[in-house]
Amino acid sequence: MEETGTTRLEMFSDGVFAIAATLLVLELTVKHAPSLGYQLLHQLWPSYLAYATSFLTIGIIWINHHHVMETIARVDRTLLFINTLLLLVVAFIPFPTRLVAHYLGKPGERDAVYAYGATLFLMAILFNVLWAYAARNRRLISDDMPEAKVRAVTQAAAVGVPLTALILVIAIWAPVGAIIFALAISAFYLPGAARFDRS
Amino acid sequence: MEETGTTRLEMFSDGVFAIAATLLVLELTVKHAPSLGYQLLHQLWPSYLAYATSFLTIGIIWINHHHVMETIARVDRTLLFINTLLLLVVAFIPFPTRLVAHYLGKPGERDAVYAYGATLFLMAILFNVLWAYAARNRRLISDDMPEAKVRAVTQAAAVGVPLTALILVIAIWAPVGAIIFALAISAFYLPGAARFDRS
Amino acid sequence: MEETGTTRLEMFSDGVFAIAATLLVLELTVKHAPSLGYQLLHQLWPSYLAYATSFLTIGIIWINHHHVMETIARVDRTLLFINTLLLLVVAFIPFPTRLVAHYLGKPGERDAVYAYGATLFLMAILFNVLWAYAARNRRLISDDMPEAKVRAVTQAAAVGVPLTALILVIAIWAPVGAIIFALAISAFYLPGAARFDRS
Amino acid sequence: MEETGTTRLEMFSDGVFAIAATLLVLELTVKHAPSLGYQLLHQLWPSYLAYATSFLTIGIIWINHHHVMETIARVDRTLLFINTLLLLVVAFIPFPTRLVAHYLGKPGERDAVYAYGATLFLMAILFNVLWAYAARNRRLISDDMPEAKVRAVTQAAAVGVPLTALILVIAIWAPVGAIIFALAISAFYLPGAARFDRS
Repeated sequence: MEETGTTRLEMFSDGVFAIAATLLVLELTVKHAPSLGYQLLHQLWPSYLAYATSFLTIGIIWINHHHVMETIARVDRTLLFINTLLLLVVAFIPFPTRLVAHYLGKPGERDAVYAYGATLFLMAILFNVLWAYAARNRRLISDDMPEAKVRAVTQAAAVGVPLTALILVIAIWAPVGAIIFALAISAFYLPGAARFDRS
Repeated sequence: MEETGTTRLEMFSDGVFAIAATLLVLELTVKHAPSLGYQLLHQLWPSYLAYATSFLTIGIIWINHHHVMETIARVDRTLLFINTLLLLVVAFIPFPTRLVAHYLGKPGERDAVYAYGATLFLMAILFNVLWAYAARNRRLISDDMPEAKVRAVTQAAAVGVPLTALILVIAIWAPVGAIIFALAISAFYLPGAARFDRS
Repeated sequence: MEETGTTRLEMFSDGVFAIAATLLVLELTVKHAPSLGYQLLHQLWPSYLAYATSFLTIGIIWINHHHVMETIARVDRTLLFINTLLLLVVAFIPFPTRLVAHYLGKPGERDAVYAYGATLFLMAILFNVLWAYAARNRRLISDDMPEAKVRAVTQAAAVGVPLTALILVIAIWAPVGAIIFALAISAFYLPGAARFDRS
Repeated sequence: MEETGTTRLEMFSDGVFAIAATLLVLELTVKHAPSLGYQLLHQLWPSYLAYATSFLTIGIIWINHHHVMETIARVDRTLLFINTLLLLVVAFIPFPTRLVAHYLGKPGERDAVYAYGATLFLMAILFNVLWAYAARNRRLISDDMPEAKVRAVTQAAAVGVPLTALILVIAIWAPVGAIIFALAISAFYLPGAARFDRS
């Protein structure tokens, strides 16, 4: 397995992405308080916000991971190792998501959002490390992959680092705003990236 | 990936469907009350009802999702985005399922069933949006797919919206009846849809 | 999809089998009691026993499910529906497993084992319904599948019904013995079934 | 299925590996104590350490499992049975991981690390049993697989037994050190094994 195809790696990674996204729902809880309807409509918004943000974020990283796998022709052990570290961080996302769901609007919300933002920032860094390793001198890139496509993936990966760093900066003044910003990144990513592709 | 095949999308979606369906069992709990047998036979029926309803509902949406994927030839970013939103709602189902399991027959049952029905209604809407986007002017449909098959999927998708809306209406007067109605939709869907196919 | 191949069905089913088996571990818990070592060595045996029994049982049903899928050539909606019911019961196994883990050796253990045995019994029944539907007049069987192979699957499926019924009978007098018997069925199934194959 | 290819076995095994790794995050919990930031930075290190160690360990066993599957040409029932036992132990890992996360630095930490080390030791033993069964007289090995590759897998498998035994030995004097050692094994495995491959 010094150098093999990407199929197994994609299947294992897809499994981790799908499971991490689906486990997010376990973080939603209600109290045994009198009015369930009041809780669902007025008190659970941090849970909904955290759930949607994390689900879409994992969806985006899944799509970007596919872009990388489509451009590379083979896998070596170093890539396997970096990919395992990336998955370790992606599978960690349900934990800070739960913190945000439970602490937003309460004392400790800033720390919860720091933990959330730091996880996404680390994910963005590791994604760039993964891609930099694969793309450097076209080390693992398919021979027939046009250079324009390689550059498009590089740009899409690079933009994640300042955007997730910005989540951390916004959290200093506005923890709730930082999560809404993170949701907006994910929600607007797809049409934005589509424009990228055509350039 | 401006336009690619549907394999990866199906695998990721199937993963989310299978995991969401299997996580439902985690919502079943017993109290440390004296008689376990009494609880299992007489008190846990809301949990069994909620479990069976949600499991079959996810099974139905999985089957319908395959129908859609069979008719379309390619995936673009907009479809990917709508599909991610649909999965976000499907993966959310264990949460209102737990609410129904815990609140049916107790104060708050109506709110729990509203949350359940609203989730299924939103799922039905998003499924129709997904299909409308793919089928409009046969945008993503395979060239060799007969128009009759496309119409059959359109009809099967469309019927979900009034049926899930009816769950919400029934819940106003009879929350338990609304869940039984939701179970009946799923349980009778398959033979019904089979008749559809032959028409 | 009136009649299609078995690949998707197998993938979705495999997902449910793998997830149900892996979720079993979540039922293992320790109390915040003074001696962790004492709990792990002397008090958690019902949890270990329940975990191993359910994991191996899901492993066996997974293997048998493959035998069925190998012999059949196509899937129709009725098979899809019976399969969904079978998966519903398989995905339910973690719940009675937790009951056995928590109640064995305590008041309520008999009810817990009844719930466990009844779940396995229902699974065995549904597995036979699935196979009877597929095999009747070779309805869905591959044309080139030898009749001897079809009979071997019929025998392997049929044996599950009396064996799981016996779990329920043994539970009347010896709940712990019934779980050990269920574990023994799974542990001895494979060499036994291997002998079957050669006959 | 007396002797079949390895595809299904790999898919089921991959599912269990991916799910077990992703479930680890559920073991991370915070208390409703005043300072969330203090907990995250100063008190949760045993959880982070346990999470990273188990995630990387499952990653390593997943990679090694692929090496085995690449060298073997067919699956028989005995291999299927040993593989199910191996998966039973892999899927168990989240439980001792939770023990380590909760007990490290507290009374009972030695017992928690014993449980952790014993699980990894049992996993290493079963992995060697699996490989010994497949490789003995090249029973299930592909005919075109060079003997050097078979020996490389044997060596990589064998090294796991003394290394995981060492975790147990270190735990006698230094429970925290034993977990750090387990993390180091996983973290340094990949470059080390790469050197193996080239020999």
